[in-house]
Amino acid sequence: MPHNDFRHDLAQQLRVDSIRTSDAGGSGHPTSSMSAADLMAVLLDGYLKLDYTNTDNPANDHLIFSKGHASPLYYAMLKAVGAITDEELLTFRSLGSRLEGHPTPRIPPTDVATGSLGQGLPVGVGLALAGKQLDRLPYRVWVLCGDSEMAEGSIWEAFQHAGWTGLDNLTAIVDVNRLGQTRETMLGWDLDGYVARAEAFGWKAIAIDGHDLDAIDAGLAQAVQTTDRPSVIFAKTHKGRGVKAVEDKPGKHGKPLEDPAEAIEELGGAQSLSVSVKTPTPGAPHRFPTAGGELPRWELGEEVATRQAYGQALAQLGGLRGDVVVLDGEVSNSTMSELFAHAHPDRYFEMFIAEQQMIAAAVGLQVRNWVAFASTFGAFLTRAHDFIRMAAVSRADLRLCGSHAGVSIGEDGPSQMALEDISMFRSIHGSTVLHPSDANQTAALVAEMATLPGVSYLRTLRGKTPVRTSPDENIRVGGSRVLRNSDHDDLTIVACGITVGEAEKAADVLDGEGIKARVIDCYSIKPIDAETLVQSAGETGAVLTVEDHWPEGGLGDAVLGALAEHPTRVRKLAVTEMPVSGKPGELLHAAHIDAEAVVAAARQLLKAG
Amino acid sequence: MPHNDFRHDLAQQLRVDSIRTSDAGGSGHPTSSMSAADLMAVLLDGYLKLDYTNTDNPANDHLIFSKGHASPLYYAMLKAVGAITDEELLTFRSLGSRLEGHPTPRIPPTDVATGSLGQGLPVGVGLALAGKQLDRLPYRVWVLCGDSEMAEGSIWEAFQHAGWTGLDNLTAIVDVNRLGQTRETMLGWDLDGYVARAEAFGWKAIAIDGHDLDAIDAGLAQAVQTTDRPSVIFAKTHKGRGVKAVEDKPGKHGKPLEDPAEAIEELGGAQSLSVSVKTPTPGAPHRFPTAGGELPRWELGEEVATRQAYGQALAQLGGLRGDVVVLDGEVSNSTMSELFAHAHPDRYFEMFIAEQQMIAAAVGLQVRNWVAFASTFGAFLTRAHDFIRMAAVSRADLRLCGSHAGVSIGEDGPSQMALEDISMFRSIHGSTVLHPSDANQTAALVAEMATLPGVSYLRTLRGKTPVRTSPDENIRVGGSRVLRNSDHDDLTIVACGITVGEAEKAADVLDGEGIKARVIDCYSIKPIDAETLVQSAGETGAVLTVEDHWPEGGLGDAVLGALAEHPTRVRKLAVTEMPVSGKPGELLHAAHIDAEAVVAAARQLLKAG
Repeated sequence: MPHNDFRHDLAQQLRVDSIRTSDAGGSGHPTSSMSAADLMAVLLDGYLKLDYTNTDNPANDHLIFSKGHASPLYYAMLKAVGAITDEELLTFRSLGSRLEGHPTPRIPPTDVATGSLGQGLPVGVGLALAGKQLDRLPYRVWVLCGDSEMAEGSIWEAFQHAGWTGLDNLTAIVDVNRLGQTRETMLGWDLDGYVARAEAFGWKAIAIDGHDLDAIDAGLAQAVQTTDRPSVIFAKTHKGRGVKAVEDKPGKHGKPLEDPAEAIEELGGAQSLSVSVKTPTPGAPHRFPTAGGELPRWELGEEVATRQAYGQALAQLGGLRGDVVVLDGEVSNSTMSELFAHAHPDRYFEMFIAEQQMIAAAVGLQVRNWVAFASTFGAFLTRAHDFIRMAAVSRADLRLCGSHAGVSIGEDGPSQMALEDISMFRSIHGSTVLHPSDANQTAALVAEMATLPGVSYLRTLRGKTPVRTSPDENIRVGGSRVLRNSDHDDLTIVACGITVGEAEKAADVLDGEGIKARVIDCYSIKPIDAETLVQSAGETGAVLTVEDHWPEGGLGDAVLGALAEHPTRVRKLAVTEMPVSGKPGELLHAAHIDAEAVVAAARQLLKAG
Repeated sequence: MPHNDFRHDLAQQLRVDSIRTSDAGGSGHPTSSMSAADLMAVLLDGYLKLDYTNTDNPANDHLIFSKGHASPLYYAMLKAVGAITDEELLTFRSLGSRLEGHPTPRIPPTDVATGSLGQGLPVGVGLALAGKQLDRLPYRVWVLCGDSEMAEGSIWEAFQHAGWTGLDNLTAIVDVNRLGQTRETMLGWDLDGYVARAEAFGWKAIAIDGHDLDAIDAGLAQAVQTTDRPSVIFAKTHKGRGVKAVEDKPGKHGKPLEDPAEAIEELGGAQSLSVSVKTPTPGAPHRFPTAGGELPRWELGEEVATRQAYGQALAQLGGLRGDVVVLDGEVSNSTMSELFAHAHPDRYFEMFIAEQQMIAAAVGLQVRNWVAFASTFGAFLTRAHDFIRMAAVSRADLRLCGSHAGVSIGEDGPSQMALEDISMFRSIHGSTVLHPSDANQTAALVAEMATLPGVSYLRTLRGKTPVRTSPDENIRVGGSRVLRNSDHDDLTIVACGITVGEAEKAADVLDGEGIKARVIDCYSIKPIDAETLVQSAGETGAVLTVEDHWPEGGLGDAVLGALAEHPTRVRKLAVTEMPVSGKPGELLHAAHIDAEAVVAAARQLLKAG
């Protein structure tokens, strides 16, 4: 029989510490913590296998608080296992504390930041995929979910993918406390409703009373014994359990208790029990052999789509590095990540049309040190914006590729055109934003991305472009290419991607009119080559930017930022009207970002100057 | 008995025209169209009630192609009902044609643009909500879905919300052709699997052979007869049905047929059948009475959070305008939209924690001319970025409010801080971006938002700010407020939201040092008050921007854009390091966007100049 006295006392301590820490912090979510205290007490005392003294142990289980606002409970657990002191516990939410309002990786062994609901479970799917297919270690991924977050579609992307894959190393525990922030959830305490949904998605679903220690023990045991499919425990609980003033009462979300001393007394008083968490059987992660080879090279003048170069470079990189893995959103024959999938099928993950789950899985894979590249149309990465934002809070290293940039894709129309992607990725903290104009640039940048920290983004083109860059040229993050220049240039044209060719053509036309244009291929948009831009702006006096993107947040804004303290007349050319369908050349023309538009803008800019 | 001969011929014509139009356009998705042709033939001939000669008829049914890539079929239907000519049909995907690669509202009666998968069904939920709760008309919303898009979480948000609400005026038809872009879907032809999922979410699910005209008729009849819950037909179909060269074959996605003439012959040749679609019983939409009242006013110096002002203004606006409706993502006591919910419960929609469904529902409501305001934390609007992007393609008028801007929220930490929202919304085509610094500004802007076309965004603050703006001042989209100025200002400080107060304090300190700072409250970020900025930059020579947002894509970039052709030294102050938890003032200080940082930056800027 399990030690129910100890578990009861431990659960009460977790509640008391949730109240104490929220009280010390002056804010927080104690009631959302108290509902799950019994669940977590039994998990700690008997099921979790995690060496808190060696959080880098690759065989460790993983525990994700998808309901990140239950951070008081999470930190109370860290105290109970001895990972933090009671003193540190009470620093909750104060400046400098590792114990932030919602958990982040600043406090080990936290794998990822949570707090935007519905993200922890999809990240858990990524970790479980890593365990099964890459690390090949028997660790289990435990995810504590709230019931309010079951409303997020991303939760169902996770249910779907894990069910389809049969991830029996994944167990979700849903704290069905019925009460959301302002009202009852859609399903309330209808555990049968939850069970039907989970089973329909291919999971083993277990409904229990989340305050019955024996039932919790039995539920966890059943979860661990489940093979061939993921498991989920739906636990009926009371928000604020154990304290009459708040238990199962509305209006008690997200605030410290009014009378913490009385509540603590009601719970049996403060304690300092410590719990011995099981440690995992030692094991080393699987490593994929490297086959060698080298990055692809193209001859000057060849016509190659940068998306094609991405796929070829990625496939070759997979031979050079055994840690590179690739995910795609069921468009791998468009993004060309299929070339990697064919070369390294064991390291390819088909994520279907579920971009949020794709990004979350990549975040989960990088927790286990896999170098994950994920791709879909650039336009559809907007679907996962919140996940990409949270990846930055998670200090995750992610490599993303968005194909089909801008109006230059042609006939498919605006729904498929990435026109806000540069803006989105520039505003991700610590990000790198790259938009190569030819195949050799692409290959060099893909290779460098594998070594970059943070979120890096590569934007590729649907159509072919001529190779202008020698395979031996030094193409690097933060660099740029001056395509043409003279000592007497009248203006600088800054372009990227498809507009580089347009800028070049425009420079030819302008040259015929006696106007000398310097042309810069600004393939690294963040970081941008400020030194070259400032120098060029100083020498030529006027700058014209041209990009296949909306005017806001793209190349033009990045150039303006670089020149902010170096006053220069700058004109931005970008897409200003909603595009329609048409041929690529027609659409570049209609959007006034083709060579003709560049010529006209250059003339006007010089005339106005 | 239904007229199966006619329906068969009609279906074949829809297939033939799907092939012809894709062939004429040189690209497109004929095989994804052919699988659903039988379904749509029976829908047109007997079930749909839509007056194609009067597409503004409020009693019309609505038909959304959630699988927007089946546009050849959609346009073939428009020809069959007489809404377009055969000649126009063949303009598919050419420049200037209303028949874009994926449907947009440019071709009536298309309600919304589709093409980013998983969006049509959630928009359909919005339309069905409008029918039930607002218009109170018996129109039905039909949504054709693909099976690949069932992988999108947003589809399950729609299933969940519609099931919970019991929207029996909504029928989804899922074309289960088994084949995605590169491979079989997760469920393939497992109709039982789909039925189990839909039923678990509270829908009536009907599985049929999607090429059996009698079965389709029976399925549609059953859907129409279903009360108390939404209905979904899962139809087993063959991609490319009817043409051996492509039927149920992999590798045939998204391309015209290789031998269209042979395929057309195989289908029985080209025809020009026309179908008489039923028209709806006439009816007028319900109108809510207006109660009058006036916008709230606050006295100068009062301390009010702009989120509080948003809620109060919205509640009052609801009294002035019967067409205003409000949605929230289960945080209405944080965004303060609860004040509207309490005042006008019939016009409030609780969307729970499902931001994609919330935005999609707002898009659906505005199709029926309701003036929809939707709110959640600004950070969580990133969850719906793809839906907001597509709303612009849909030419939708949406009013969005994001609360809890920036580090000034304090203890909750970075997961809850909107730090990329200004960037995201600036890059939405045709958008308006507003960030008032006090309550009276907020009320004026909320009222103006109700009349704005396109996507407008209001960013509100968690904490209180002093009322600095008189309730009688002219606050408007595109405006700004000069808080202090003189004839001899040394620099301009441009701020918005929480940083306006910091800028003011900094100006006081600088004044003590003999430095005169002009301070501009730039509450309208897009459109920005370029005239005032250019004039001020010209007069003061140097500009300092300060914002509670990442440096990319926010106020600073907007100011740089306004000054692009008016060279000025500009320095941007913004949040550059990942924030943590702490008190609001501590975090503004740590982020170097408080008064002290403004003073230091102003000194440096002037020294460097």
